[in-house]
Amino acid sequence: MDDSLKPVRIGICGLGTVGSGTFNVLLENADAIAARARAPLQVTHVGARRDNPACDLAGIRLSRDIFEVARDPEVDVLVELIGGTTVARELIETAIRSGKHVVTANKALIAEYGNELFALAAEHNVALRYEAAVAGGIPIIKALREGLAGNRIEWLAGIINGTGNYILSEMREHRREFADVLAEAQALGYAEADPTFDVEGIDAAHKLVILASLAFGIPLQFASVYTEGITLLTPQDLDYAEELGYRVKHLGIAKQGDRGVELRVHPTLIPKDQLLANVNGVKNAVLVEGSAVGPTLYYGAGAGGKPTASAVVADLVDLARDLSAGQVSRVPSLSFADTSLQDLPILPMAEVETPWYLRMEADDKPGVLSRIASIFSDQGISIEALIQKAPTAGQVRVPLIVLTNRAAQGRVDDAVEQIEALDSIAGRVTRIRVEILDG
Amino acid sequence: MDDSLKPVRIGICGLGTVGSGTFNVLLENADAIAARARAPLQVTHVGARRDNPACDLAGIRLSRDIFEVARDPEVDVLVELIGGTTVARELIETAIRSGKHVVTANKALIAEYGNELFALAAEHNVALRYEAAVAGGIPIIKALREGLAGNRIEWLAGIINGTGNYILSEMREHRREFADVLAEAQALGYAEADPTFDVEGIDAAHKLVILASLAFGIPLQFASVYTEGITLLTPQDLDYAEELGYRVKHLGIAKQGDRGVELRVHPTLIPKDQLLANVNGVKNAVLVEGSAVGPTLYYGAGAGGKPTASAVVADLVDLARDLSAGQVSRVPSLSFADTSLQDLPILPMAEVETPWYLRMEADDKPGVLSRIASIFSDQGISIEALIQKAPTAGQVRVPLIVLTNRAAQGRVDDAVEQIEALDSIAGRVTRIRVEILDG
Repeated sequence: MDDSLKPVRIGICGLGTVGSGTFNVLLENADAIAARARAPLQVTHVGARRDNPACDLAGIRLSRDIFEVARDPEVDVLVELIGGTTVARELIETAIRSGKHVVTANKALIAEYGNELFALAAEHNVALRYEAAVAGGIPIIKALREGLAGNRIEWLAGIINGTGNYILSEMREHRREFADVLAEAQALGYAEADPTFDVEGIDAAHKLVILASLAFGIPLQFASVYTEGITLLTPQDLDYAEELGYRVKHLGIAKQGDRGVELRVHPTLIPKDQLLANVNGVKNAVLVEGSAVGPTLYYGAGAGGKPTASAVVADLVDLARDLSAGQVSRVPSLSFADTSLQDLPILPMAEVETPWYLRMEADDKPGVLSRIASIFSDQGISIEALIQKAPTAGQVRVPLIVLTNRAAQGRVDDAVEQIEALDSIAGRVTRIRVEILDG
Repeated sequence: MDDSLKPVRIGICGLGTVGSGTFNVLLENADAIAARARAPLQVTHVGARRDNPACDLAGIRLSRDIFEVARDPEVDVLVELIGGTTVARELIETAIRSGKHVVTANKALIAEYGNELFALAAEHNVALRYEAAVAGGIPIIKALREGLAGNRIEWLAGIINGTGNYILSEMREHRREFADVLAEAQALGYAEADPTFDVEGIDAAHKLVILASLAFGIPLQFASVYTEGITLLTPQDLDYAEELGYRVKHLGIAKQGDRGVELRVHPTLIPKDQLLANVNGVKNAVLVEGSAVGPTLYYGAGAGGKPTASAVVADLVDLARDLSAGQVSRVPSLSFADTSLQDLPILPMAEVETPWYLRMEADDKPGVLSRIASIFSDQGISIEALIQKAPTAGQVRVPLIVLTNRAAQGRVDDAVEQIEALDSIAGRVTRIRVEILDG
């Protein structure tokens, strides 16, 4: 063991899945952690409304009022694991104002209030770390802030919501309906009773905002993300996608282009031989395109007590190493020096260009296809592939699937509006974006 | 830009593929790099035996004697990109003794002389960084030293030689022979004129030794690695593996078990739906099993000028950030504090247990199979699967493929010796280890 044996004193607020995971990882791996940090990491105070039988708190100060932890002079680092954006925000602000460093796993809080919180932390010369806020145990924030620091990041695309990926994987593998899989995921505890955050893409949007800031050096801006969930996907669409050589994944995508930054979360067809297409179940993965390194991919558990604790403890070790060097802000919070952050324009979705997968129900009669083709042609949209299914006995309508070349959403919207107005087309046209990732 | 604008002065030694890549990445991405490092990274001196037309050296001091760079008071960091273990070692030692920090991409040097070089760097209070030494642009060293610092690392398995992976991918996809693909790879410049380092697994062994030290906190020990190349693999073996549900990859594997550490490089059958099995061509990937996080995977370009430069520049940015904090040894060289490194026993290969793929040419007559089965049974080896091909017209021998359950190599060696002695078996038995990775 090194000579600098002064322990780093940790206060954990919240003793749920991640809180108890963090508590126990610090305990179980104490030797390896101390050898790496060159100092013991010692939990001195736990703030939790109730005990967790998974944690043996003997000899550790326990407060029902978590703000006691934020004000405890025997705590060097407060670990915020209560979630939410109201009390958690107040707690972190209190800790920072009390001169404590903070480690958090709270993606919503960082995405929505990170700019202010990082400024407050800088003002008080303390660290605010958040590796666990994106993709659980995958050290993606460290990769972007440090490992890829020599690159201009051109784009990134990630499966950053495990619940959504689990649902899509189940739908595809077993041809099940969305609602059916969701109900099961809720019963198994993979999905929340209110699944909105996961299945509508809000959770993914929170994470994407953080990744985009780190990648491009732009301020956090949750309001700028276009967000589309997975609730309207059908097993049929997943099947047709496979037939065309693609797989449907719910991705968070950030791209830096000449005309602006794209920030979007939506179901996406990607080539099925891509690694990202083969990330299944609750796992997460982020594919990052750097100007020098090309594509790199980071894969692992995106949620869960111990995996998320892995990221929390990595932040704590990082911080302990910084404290031994007497400087906690060697890496800028958002990778780029605050004074270098640029508020780049966000490209409106109408101008975002991708290839498109479009599915419609068409009357099985002559002339329909040529009518549709001419609508696309008028909008300058070219067709890359088309599947027209033969009608089964008694069917008057057949599914028609069109894969287009790159086209701005605005043009596709116009084309779809005209197609939906045709008498020979029933109902709405299903639209899913396509990305041909380099990976 | 930040107030600490003092540039970090860089001397690059070697202007080959990686040297010129590094020079140009520093130039092309200068703004983003300075914004991240909070200081400009400025190349002030280049040491190279000859110019490289890819680099515009106008205004930069150029020396034909690379030791001039190591002694230049206008250089803060020496970047060693000449390769080899003789002059490179002397160069780095000279730089360290002159009080310069060093960044290197030299895997052989770190694997073979790293223990001594890290000690020398510590003695002179300078940094010696080597992210580029393993898996090119993939920030795997940072992931192990920092991102996974909360875990006990249980094992890791990596595709860490791009040339070998390219050859195996081509052999499988196009059913080509090893020698044929190698000759083409040499013509294309993917493989060296002397391919020994790549195809015999020596390059992978260098990298594995480094990864194992970082993972387990053991000293670097190149001599301890068991190394087996890919020269004896045939397209038939790759085919049979697929038939059994596996793919053959050349892996570096490090495991920490109760009886010792396993350090081995060899062809390996892995389940073909694993991400690692789907890493093709020259790409690299490392799968790491952490006690808290579970499996994580890191994928990207393992070689090439710009990708390797990405890792070199990441080290430079890291160092610049450390210099701004006035402390360059916040992270121990091998992840664990020097005083915590443990020289754990290495498990002899005879005791290493894996399932096995065995292929033999057997006479197509009754009794052969039962004879073989009884040899396995006597050694306590159970059979998991078996393929016996029907003979084609006129064939007197048929290929017999056996997949065993876990068995120590010693027992398999004994069984194979007995099988090879049978009159009904022609030639040698092909043996390939199997790993059922959690991924």
